[in-house]
Amino acid sequence: MKLYNSAMPAPNPRRVRIFAAEKGIDLPLEEVSIPKREHKSDAFLQKNSLGQTPVLELDDGTTICESISICRYLEELNPENPLFGRNALEKAMIDMWLRRVEFIVMGPVGNFWRHAHPFTARVVKQFNDFGESNREAAAKAFNWLGGEIGSREFICGDSYSMADVAALCAVDFAGFTGLEMPEEAENLRGWHKRVSARPSAAA
Amino acid sequence: MKLYNSAMPAPNPRRVRIFAAEKGIDLPLEEVSIPKREHKSDAFLQKNSLGQTPVLELDDGTTICESISICRYLEELNPENPLFGRNALEKAMIDMWLRRVEFIVMGPVGNFWRHAHPFTARVVKQFNDFGESNREAAAKAFNWLGGEIGSREFICGDSYSMADVAALCAVDFAGFTGLEMPEEAENLRGWHKRVSARPSAAA
Repeated sequence: MKLYNSAMPAPNPRRVRIFAAEKGIDLPLEEVSIPKREHKSDAFLQKNSLGQTPVLELDDGTTICESISICRYLEELNPENPLFGRNALEKAMIDMWLRRVEFIVMGPVGNFWRHAHPFTARVVKQFNDFGESNREAAAKAFNWLGGEIGSREFICGDSYSMADVAALCAVDFAGFTGLEMPEEAENLRGWHKRVSARPSAAA
Repeated sequence: MKLYNSAMPAPNPRRVRIFAAEKGIDLPLEEVSIPKREHKSDAFLQKNSLGQTPVLELDDGTTICESISICRYLEELNPENPLFGRNALEKAMIDMWLRRVEFIVMGPVGNFWRHAHPFTARVVKQFNDFGESNREAAAKAFNWLGGEIGSREFICGDSYSMADVAALCAVDFAGFTGLEMPEEAENLRGWHKRVSARPSAAA
């Protein structure tokens, strides 16, 4: 198998790279350049009709799209050191937090990037007022997440999970777009420091 | 356990009701009225700080938020007739389609509802031009999904899955907001007829 990957700052391929690093999975990468628009080439659209990275290609040519779906597949094949949970309740709570990170935190970050950033203005029609409104929505989401983390070590408690992977990628991508964690979000900043110190964060 | 539910047209609680009906799970419901803003009451915010339904409350008081996470939990407890897949690849493909339904199809529908519908105008600040632009995005998403379904019986192939549940709720909620499936999306219309004919669709 191999992973069609896009380099930083793309947040979604990074989720898979961090997951693989945490699990000790050696995943061959093939770069698909977003600045060169390779993800919209006819050849790549055959692999993912949405023209998005990452894509995992299996040896028989089957392609699995969507970063989280790829990680779930790899977790099924490599069940040791689970990042999606060990039992029904843990799995549900990690999935809940993963969704909250994606919809509540990454949602406004993505909207800001899509509708207010000069890079995307070159390739899509933007609604700038809407895009700019996501500065406040993202700050609110960061503060909410920090409040929820409270004194916990990781997002779901004592164990590092897929929710931490997604949140790290969201916060770092937000920083790249110009949306920093608010000063007052101390718990979030503490969590960010802890997860960024793991070797996997460099993946 | 019991499910904090909101009546139609709310799409997310309906996902859990359809899932439970398909699995034959009897789930006691307690209504949380969105028109009455009960989902934003202090009591309900204790159960879900985001003020969203559905929420599954376990007998020990633990609350699981997020429709799909609730269904995953119920699937772990009731593994027969799986709607999230039987093996690693099936699970990955169903998860991939579920995500595509949520982000690609439900994304623009939610944006339209949030930013262009008179109901939400009463409770949130709207960016109407952005909201209206999602008419076209939703139509494009419907046509894309129909093209991907092609001659398949269900979204992931021969078996009804969680991706069909989410897509049915998305299409029906879109219709409620005023976004109909395009005339030319014949495969999507055929699929919609098939899944709507299942008894679970009335849940």
